[in-house]
Amino acid sequence: MPGTRVPRPSKTTRQQFVLAAMQLFAEKGYGATSIADILQVTRAKAGSLYHLFRTKQDLLLAVLALYRDGIGPMLLEPAWKGVDDPIERIFALLDAYRRRLVDTDFFYGCPIGSLALELHEPDPPVRALLATNFTGWTRAIERCLRAAGARVAATVSHRELASFVLTTMEGAVMQARTHRAIATFDAAVAGLRDYFARLGYAVPRPAPRRRRRTLAPSRQGAVR
Amino acid sequence: MPGTRVPRPSKTTRQQFVLAAMQLFAEKGYGATSIADILQVTRAKAGSLYHLFRTKQDLLLAVLALYRDGIGPMLLEPAWKGVDDPIERIFALLDAYRRRLVDTDFFYGCPIGSLALELHEPDPPVRALLATNFTGWTRAIERCLRAAGARVAATVSHRELASFVLTTMEGAVMQARTHRAIATFDAAVAGLRDYFARLGYAVPRPAPRRRRRTLAPSRQGAVR
Repeated sequence: MPGTRVPRPSKTTRQQFVLAAMQLFAEKGYGATSIADILQVTRAKAGSLYHLFRTKQDLLLAVLALYRDGIGPMLLEPAWKGVDDPIERIFALLDAYRRRLVDTDFFYGCPIGSLALELHEPDPPVRALLATNFTGWTRAIERCLRAAGARVAATVSHRELASFVLTTMEGAVMQARTHRAIATFDAAVAGLRDYFARLGYAVPRPAPRRRRRTLAPSRQGAVR
Repeated sequence: MPGTRVPRPSKTTRQQFVLAAMQLFAEKGYGATSIADILQVTRAKAGSLYHLFRTKQDLLLAVLALYRDGIGPMLLEPAWKGVDDPIERIFALLDAYRRRLVDTDFFYGCPIGSLALELHEPDPPVRALLATNFTGWTRAIERCLRAAGARVAATVSHRELASFVLTTMEGAVMQARTHRAIATFDAAVAGLRDYFARLGYAVPRPAPRRRRRTLAPSRQGAVR
């Protein structure tokens, strides 16, 4: 903390709580994460947490706001580093989810999607922030489609197509996580890629896969 | 129970427990459903439940097996009643999910998809049954595609395309439930429909929507 002369490491900041909750909700789910889990990770006292967040749902709202505000630095910018073509960016974003699935042995997918289906009756502010996150994602895709400038058939608008890209990502992540295999994810992206080509977009070829993926079983054997 | 001379209504059968669990898991989620909830719905004693199912997970396995075995009578046959064209059947199945979303005010989507994302680290038998349910669904679509006989571009196989249809359904249900609006679901199906047409399939036109959908707000007002 700049300007603070006496360091107070025992005081866990708001951001530390939010980051811990973000990680735990993504790893265990919202329902399975307890306040005790968050206190254990942050090594904080209950009082300092409850001083900032009255309920677990308040923490969830802060996590969802951080996903919303951090979509650029946390998601889009890393995925788009060195990628300039707007259509290539769309597939680079999908590939970022693919990498996360493969690199975590299908443990991490899309945290927003998981929360959206875990919470059967989210309270209105939670649902609104989940929806805002989806809208932020599809707006980014829509901007790519606009930048690509290609004419899309009248049957499907840029907005609808962007929504279809999110549909593809979420459905593909769900299947890959369930099958613990990337084939269904790749099938979905192949379908989308083929559709984009048929819509007249110049679709990039899939990036060559890193060799170690084919060595996954022995790598797992070595790590575990 | 045929052959039982003295009716024993207090003895809840295995199937009653499974059906109650199926409904509760779909409505509340797996984690939020307690054994007490199941006992309350079935009006059974804990002993008769634990006699049949040692754990809540055993009930989940029975529920997932029922979804797997019941895909014909519970899902496909009602959706395909009066629909003979194999491509039309694919879109009729998607429309069955659409109807369920709209008719339940976006409360019910796909129970398998919800469980697949709620359970972050399902035990192997649970994960296997979730995957089997997805595979049963995509195999049904694959049979439709084979029956349609049209040649699909070499970039995408029948199996991959069937997987892409499931991807579309799951991603579309997730977005519709989150936005509490059918527009994103319709956008995804419009994209899939457009893609199918570009693949050379004779794609049916969307069925005319029932008029009451446009009156939803006032209907809600009247019902609630």
